[in-house]
Amino acid sequence: MTWINENYLKLQAGYLFPEIGRRKRAFQATHPNAKIISMGIGDVTQPLAPAVTAAMKKAVDEMARAETFKGYDDGGIGYEFLREAIRDNDYKARGIEIDIDEIIVSDGAKCDTGNMQEIFGLDNIVAVSDPVYPVYVDTNVMAGRTGDTAEKGRYERIVYMPCTEENNFVPEPPAQKVDLIYLCFPNNPTGAVATKEQLAAWVDYARRNKSIIFYDAAYEAFISEPDIPHSIYEVDGAKDVAIEFRSFSKTAGFTGVRCAFTVLPKQLKAFTKDGVAVEVGPIWKRRHCTKFNGVSYITQAGAAATYTKDGKKQVKETIDIYMSNAKLIRETLGKAGYTVYGGVNAPYIWLKTPEGVSSWDFFDTLLNKAHVVTTPGAGFGSAGEGYVRLTAFGRLDSVKEALERIRAIS
Amino acid sequence: MTWINENYLKLQAGYLFPEIGRRKRAFQATHPNAKIISMGIGDVTQPLAPAVTAAMKKAVDEMARAETFKGYDDGGIGYEFLREAIRDNDYKARGIEIDIDEIIVSDGAKCDTGNMQEIFGLDNIVAVSDPVYPVYVDTNVMAGRTGDTAEKGRYERIVYMPCTEENNFVPEPPAQKVDLIYLCFPNNPTGAVATKEQLAAWVDYARRNKSIIFYDAAYEAFISEPDIPHSIYEVDGAKDVAIEFRSFSKTAGFTGVRCAFTVLPKQLKAFTKDGVAVEVGPIWKRRHCTKFNGVSYITQAGAAATYTKDGKKQVKETIDIYMSNAKLIRETLGKAGYTVYGGVNAPYIWLKTPEGVSSWDFFDTLLNKAHVVTTPGAGFGSAGEGYVRLTAFGRLDSVKEALERIRAIS
Repeated sequence: MTWINENYLKLQAGYLFPEIGRRKRAFQATHPNAKIISMGIGDVTQPLAPAVTAAMKKAVDEMARAETFKGYDDGGIGYEFLREAIRDNDYKARGIEIDIDEIIVSDGAKCDTGNMQEIFGLDNIVAVSDPVYPVYVDTNVMAGRTGDTAEKGRYERIVYMPCTEENNFVPEPPAQKVDLIYLCFPNNPTGAVATKEQLAAWVDYARRNKSIIFYDAAYEAFISEPDIPHSIYEVDGAKDVAIEFRSFSKTAGFTGVRCAFTVLPKQLKAFTKDGVAVEVGPIWKRRHCTKFNGVSYITQAGAAATYTKDGKKQVKETIDIYMSNAKLIRETLGKAGYTVYGGVNAPYIWLKTPEGVSSWDFFDTLLNKAHVVTTPGAGFGSAGEGYVRLTAFGRLDSVKEALERIRAIS
Repeated sequence: MTWINENYLKLQAGYLFPEIGRRKRAFQATHPNAKIISMGIGDVTQPLAPAVTAAMKKAVDEMARAETFKGYDDGGIGYEFLREAIRDNDYKARGIEIDIDEIIVSDGAKCDTGNMQEIFGLDNIVAVSDPVYPVYVDTNVMAGRTGDTAEKGRYERIVYMPCTEENNFVPEPPAQKVDLIYLCFPNNPTGAVATKEQLAAWVDYARRNKSIIFYDAAYEAFISEPDIPHSIYEVDGAKDVAIEFRSFSKTAGFTGVRCAFTVLPKQLKAFTKDGVAVEVGPIWKRRHCTKFNGVSYITQAGAAATYTKDGKKQVKETIDIYMSNAKLIRETLGKAGYTVYGGVNAPYIWLKTPEGVSSWDFFDTLLNKAHVVTTPGAGFGSAGEGYVRLTAFGRLDSVKEALERIRAIS
């Protein structure tokens, strides 16, 4: 008799985006002429940079000739040419020393942030912000690190840290002890960023409690303010306690190409029940090379091209397009009387719903009256109630039209 | 305090291929002029088919223009154009009805065969052949489904099914009850294939015991004999009990490109401890879409091109190259007095070592005297002792030279 992993049955049925899709389709069916604009799902719309596509075509040509053909990425953790470019541009250039052996290339930050918990014991206590990227929670549910859901749809045994106007959407370390801490800055969904002092408080907490921070910096490229840290390793001592996740998905429009990387510093350790310290990096590499087989050579060639002179310039131009959309959204909705957060160092705008209106009700209003799709904040956790998330990834004409429609019904 | 997943510490330290690499480097260091030929690691050497590279370049061009740019593969289970091509060519053409909703595209059969166990309970009893592809075992160790290692390096709680000359390297269903059964035909490492009758016995066993078969058919394209089944679904009733894994890695030289797929029939069910039957497909999709984010559009475009008229012809030409290598290896070594298996329906040749010589000793002899790298059979499990694996993926001139050298020392 084959037993199912019953932890999967604890997962809440209605995953956020399918429910949004369902409501959108239902509206479209009854309003076939309505031109719906999506400001909901966080997918990019600008094409790949010319430097990237040129590098990928060159890589395809190499794969077409026996002399230059590439099979398995030997070792499965990424070609040195890419890991060296990451080390030099993402770290050395900001005064951070990271060795290429500490960089592991993968096919997505979703995969890495989702899989990382596997190498840690089931009795670690997990802390997440609320609202939160659902993958952090769901993968811990699947692994059996939680109980069932209790009030507000929260899972037992997970520590939720509310992100609210009061704390400017950046939680402080909790009073209790937690072991695995998921932080994401710039934040999805709120668009908030943490200062160096705020991150230092977290690093200090983790060092004192021998906790490990999963630091998701997938939106790092959108930081515009000079004092905001791009990496948690800008904080002294962070290498002892933090794993950093990065992605080319939003930085370089790679959502349909698939490339990311994770940094596991050599000094990062976890413990056996007997109190023996174990290096985490080799354990992750063992998992990575057993359950994964490397990233496409063509993809890695494209990712490396984002670090060339032309590549950097082109990638920045695309990010500027999105961030000028973000500015327009913030300013237009602010003038229309809404309270808005985010959108300065992140492609997400966290829009407060009118007094007394729930996330889903406001979602329905915007869909039915303005034909604009957003993402209800409550879908990211109970502390997201009373907000909707807008993304800046649309094309300018669509963004303008959506804003005009929202303004008209306000 | 962060606890490590101590199951990882049960894994045997010396993974096979790193140890082979170590011995090869040590020999090269003391014999700098020796020209070593590898017949060991199962990586391909022929370039991608022209139809594939043309499709990939076209896809890169689409990604370079906003009008045709593709972001996330919506749903994350593969584009319909690819799943339809799989359905029509791999299944319908062989009289098997598979719906595209039952096909889930991924970035590798290693990933899928490694990850699939996650959705099943930890107290399922796992059965594997011996010798075996190490990923099946190691991923179950990591998950905590085994005890420690006992005699012969075998893990407690795993049922090992010896594959020997006596059973023609195809194990019969065991007398005891097992729940999750890993079968791989054409087999890595022995090159053996199962007949339809042999597979039918397994399907019958699984139906009687409510077991599930993980059927790894990654080498299906190398089958040359007409009566050998290409899919386990050629057996009546298999859809109730079998998950099938396929890959473009060896079929179309995609080891460095990364594309595969898995079939989960709708009627496949596992059970809760309360005896409630649960559909397995939706649970796997939930895992897939939570811990994975789809395969590169460019890769999927390339994979679909293997099903075009030109693509099929070109892919077959490459396989013919490898299989003529396999024939040459079998015949040359047979004439030199060795006992050889496999190589007829698989790119692997399973070479019996001379009487009384161990796998690793014969590996060392071939390395030191013929400067040829092989894979010791003992590395795949204790029943692999007394064999080495040769692969047919080399280039013809290298294969010929390696065989000449082996003949000269025999």
